[in-house]
Amino acid sequence: MGLESRIQDTPGKPLVIAERPGKSGSPTALVYGNYDVQPPDPLEDWVSPPFEPQVRNGRLYARGAEDNKGQFFYVLKAIETLVQTDSLGCGIKVVLEGEEESEGSTALTAYAQEHPEEFAADILIVTDVNRVPSGEPTIIMGLRGIVAVEVELTGASYDLHSGLHGGIAPNPATAMARLISSFHNEDGSIAIEGFEKNIRPVSKKEKELAATAPFDAGQYEKQTGVPPVAGERGLPPFERVGFRPTLEINGLHSGYGGPGGKTIIPSTAVAKITSRLVADQAPAEAVRLIREHLARHAPEGLKMKIRGEEHGGPPMRVDPDSKSLRLAETALTKVTGRKPVFYYEGASIPVIPSLSKAAGAEPVLVGFGTEEGRAHAPNESLSLDDFKLGFLYACELLAAL
Amino acid sequence: MGLESRIQDTPGKPLVIAERPGKSGSPTALVYGNYDVQPPDPLEDWVSPPFEPQVRNGRLYARGAEDNKGQFFYVLKAIETLVQTDSLGCGIKVVLEGEEESEGSTALTAYAQEHPEEFAADILIVTDVNRVPSGEPTIIMGLRGIVAVEVELTGASYDLHSGLHGGIAPNPATAMARLISSFHNEDGSIAIEGFEKNIRPVSKKEKELAATAPFDAGQYEKQTGVPPVAGERGLPPFERVGFRPTLEINGLHSGYGGPGGKTIIPSTAVAKITSRLVADQAPAEAVRLIREHLARHAPEGLKMKIRGEEHGGPPMRVDPDSKSLRLAETALTKVTGRKPVFYYEGASIPVIPSLSKAAGAEPVLVGFGTEEGRAHAPNESLSLDDFKLGFLYACELLAAL
Repeated sequence: MGLESRIQDTPGKPLVIAERPGKSGSPTALVYGNYDVQPPDPLEDWVSPPFEPQVRNGRLYARGAEDNKGQFFYVLKAIETLVQTDSLGCGIKVVLEGEEESEGSTALTAYAQEHPEEFAADILIVTDVNRVPSGEPTIIMGLRGIVAVEVELTGASYDLHSGLHGGIAPNPATAMARLISSFHNEDGSIAIEGFEKNIRPVSKKEKELAATAPFDAGQYEKQTGVPPVAGERGLPPFERVGFRPTLEINGLHSGYGGPGGKTIIPSTAVAKITSRLVADQAPAEAVRLIREHLARHAPEGLKMKIRGEEHGGPPMRVDPDSKSLRLAETALTKVTGRKPVFYYEGASIPVIPSLSKAAGAEPVLVGFGTEEGRAHAPNESLSLDDFKLGFLYACELLAAL
Repeated sequence: MGLESRIQDTPGKPLVIAERPGKSGSPTALVYGNYDVQPPDPLEDWVSPPFEPQVRNGRLYARGAEDNKGQFFYVLKAIETLVQTDSLGCGIKVVLEGEEESEGSTALTAYAQEHPEEFAADILIVTDVNRVPSGEPTIIMGLRGIVAVEVELTGASYDLHSGLHGGIAPNPATAMARLISSFHNEDGSIAIEGFEKNIRPVSKKEKELAATAPFDAGQYEKQTGVPPVAGERGLPPFERVGFRPTLEINGLHSGYGGPGGKTIIPSTAVAKITSRLVADQAPAEAVRLIREHLARHAPEGLKMKIRGEEHGGPPMRVDPDSKSLRLAETALTKVTGRKPVFYYEGASIPVIPSLSKAAGAEPVLVGFGTEEGRAHAPNESLSLDDFKLGFLYACELLAAL
């Protein structure tokens, strides 16, 4: 494609790094992407196999079609096209990593901290985001952070007969349920002591920008099958997603799950928990507070094991006055013919804050995925029309640089 | 073996029925057993395959070794021996069914109601019980009833990205945890409205009999790995098991359970629940009250599906002045050289109350299994010494008849 590329080994998954110098005095764009994907299971829910891409009705179906292979690929195709037509003035750096979905980008975070010069750039282009559900072209103004905690409760050394032992032996499933129910207050807010302390106040300008993104509750329910009723009472949905933390159960497993029944008191219960953080909650502090809460609510008679933070990443908010934002806004408007909206994202890309710091570059987060794309779920897909739009946006942005 | 036997088809699993007339004027013993077993999973925890019996250190390991094949088998061997030595005076009826562990004995219950004459007897011999943990020979004085309810909460039509949707979409795992935590009060009692209403008061004599069974908390923890701290505060363990109902989570499953993490809001959560009932709680009434409680606590924004009573069975308590009890007490004392203890069982054998009624016979519940036998768990086993004890007890009891 006209870039010099290499595989960079790390203590974790390798990085793919590529580079092309720009014309003298021109700025450099750093393109970020991740080549790893979420686990594809449950496999039986896929219409076509997750790792055999298939086009149906103008959409490409495959794990990673949207998150993130399909989306960084249109930037690579834009670079290729600009190189082939001799219209690329700026310098290009590309870094693709393999630990975004499961390992919190540990390897890239460490490598970027140790070798910031390799990533020095003027703008950081990130496509690992979606448009707002209503479909407007979208500039992402913030990301939530994330920490993960796994809790295991162990009772008897084997599954007990629920008749012989019911009323004597503590039940890890029931105890886990009671533990989880202690995480939230009745109004939906998080009940972990001290959790709110470092949340940065939201400015008037940020609230105004957040209000540019429309939200249609009926449309949301039609798309997902569920009404948008979670989170804290009294806050609009986009503020709940953009400016408030969560404590979410991703998995909860105890005892028998097969057909029919099995009359046991399960010997263990496991909950996989992630918390989304907002600026300026620190990941390590959040994990410490969750651990302390769990310890305070430890159920009687059971052993509790807490596995810390498997992947932690800090939250971030983009400076509303950033120059890079204006470039993206112009490119987006030109390509789509519409004014972009500004959205404070609920998802996390833990590496972006540290990569942005290493590069000395402001991040521009624009992607073309939609909820229809079902990132993280079976039958993930990307519309080919959106792929083309992404390609044109990347061409415009890089040409403008 | 000298009995006339046949397979009796039913709308469910077939019955095995066998009969041998007694000498004129002699009483008839009805022997009950079940040939079905609990699911063997998790298979990987078995030292030897569950359906290939293996003797190790004086114990026979196999699914059903104790519950109930191993135990009704020693009664059959006792009958065979008495027949061979021409020392059987009483009439014998045997009924073995295949729906005790999973279907609540639906077929036998119906068949016995329709053909009570086939089961007419003077004593009902049941071995599907254990000795008390301390090992004393034990006469079971009561059984708890059982009802099963499965609850499913459904949110989005697919697993949602926990970042994009966290704070908007309700989480079925969290909601299920909160629902389950509503089942019990802080003191461990059941919080279902009206649940206590029909519980029969416990007489002084019953409390005294229950107190004959010793309980050693340290021994219990050593055996099971868990301290006996569940159930209602302020009641001794055997009263909690014998005279109080439970609401137990047998299985709880939602979202991701594989290695590492998966950042989703699960689309569904399922809880398998059984409740043990005590005399005179009616199964249908208990299910109705549980359903009403679930409906009252239905979480916002999620669909709740309740699957009723998969296997329901009534509770029972044996008359402390029963003649059959005295016969069993004498046989047990003779064979073991020890005074038996009287135990109000926490487990259920839903068919016994109706079989006892059809037969017009008082039930005698004596078994030789112990907690070491791990009924319902992997590596179920029966000690060969206990098998011999059971054989001798059955010989004595039948000879006395």
